[in-house]
Amino acid sequence: MRSPRIPILKLHNCLLVSIQWELDDKTALQFQEDLLNKIHVTSANGVVIDLTSIDFIDSFIAKVLGDVIDMSKLMGAKVVITGIQPAVAITLIELGIGLNDVLTAIDLEKGLEKLQQELGE
Amino acid sequence: MRSPRIPILKLHNCLLVSIQWELDDKTALQFQEDLLNKIHVTSANGVVIDLTSIDFIDSFIAKVLGDVIDMSKLMGAKVVITGIQPAVAITLIELGIGLNDVLTAIDLEKGLEKLQQELGE
Repeated sequence: MRSPRIPILKLHNCLLVSIQWELDDKTALQFQEDLLNKIHVTSANGVVIDLTSIDFIDSFIAKVLGDVIDMSKLMGAKVVITGIQPAVAITLIELGIGLNDVLTAIDLEKGLEKLQQELGE
Repeated sequence: MRSPRIPILKLHNCLLVSIQWELDDKTALQFQEDLLNKIHVTSANGVVIDLTSIDFIDSFIAKVLGDVIDMSKLMGAKVVITGIQPAVAITLIELGIGLNDVLTAIDLEKGLEKLQQELGE
């Protein structure tokens, strides 16, 4: 069976991603590639990644997430992470992945608002 | 392996779904159940289902799609289908699934606009 891909929605100049199940390593890497491609193709200048449904994150996925944020920045897109749950926040900090300089918000709506503000719209 | 689920995003009073790969029968039925549950839990009054990435649809999936639209209506949510590709439109009409009274739009943004208009906002 083909590995499932994470859908990436385009809304105006932003991309929306909602991760709603635990990622395996292959899916996470596929997501990294897909997101960067989508930023390139759509010229999006903002990305919201919603983790509301994720209550556990392992070190590999945490690293991929940190990387994809840095890569998106390099490509010129601002990233907002939304809905980080307590256990996920604990894991990220314990792993030393503080997601420095990353915008965060409590939910998707707030994240989009924050992004629009940052982009000056 | 667990069957992949289709992520459903909540944005204000609407749910957004982007179907980005061919659905198998089990995933489609799971999606039907998930969407109806999410409408119930969030009290959403609008749903946008984006099919931009789908270039083929079989008769079972077409029926599930028609059903989920009718079911959502029963629950009080308006549905907009966006990004129907030529081949998908042909299949739907040939199968006699005209998606009567269903709002459609060319892409996700236009679909959301249409939905907000319909909901009078």
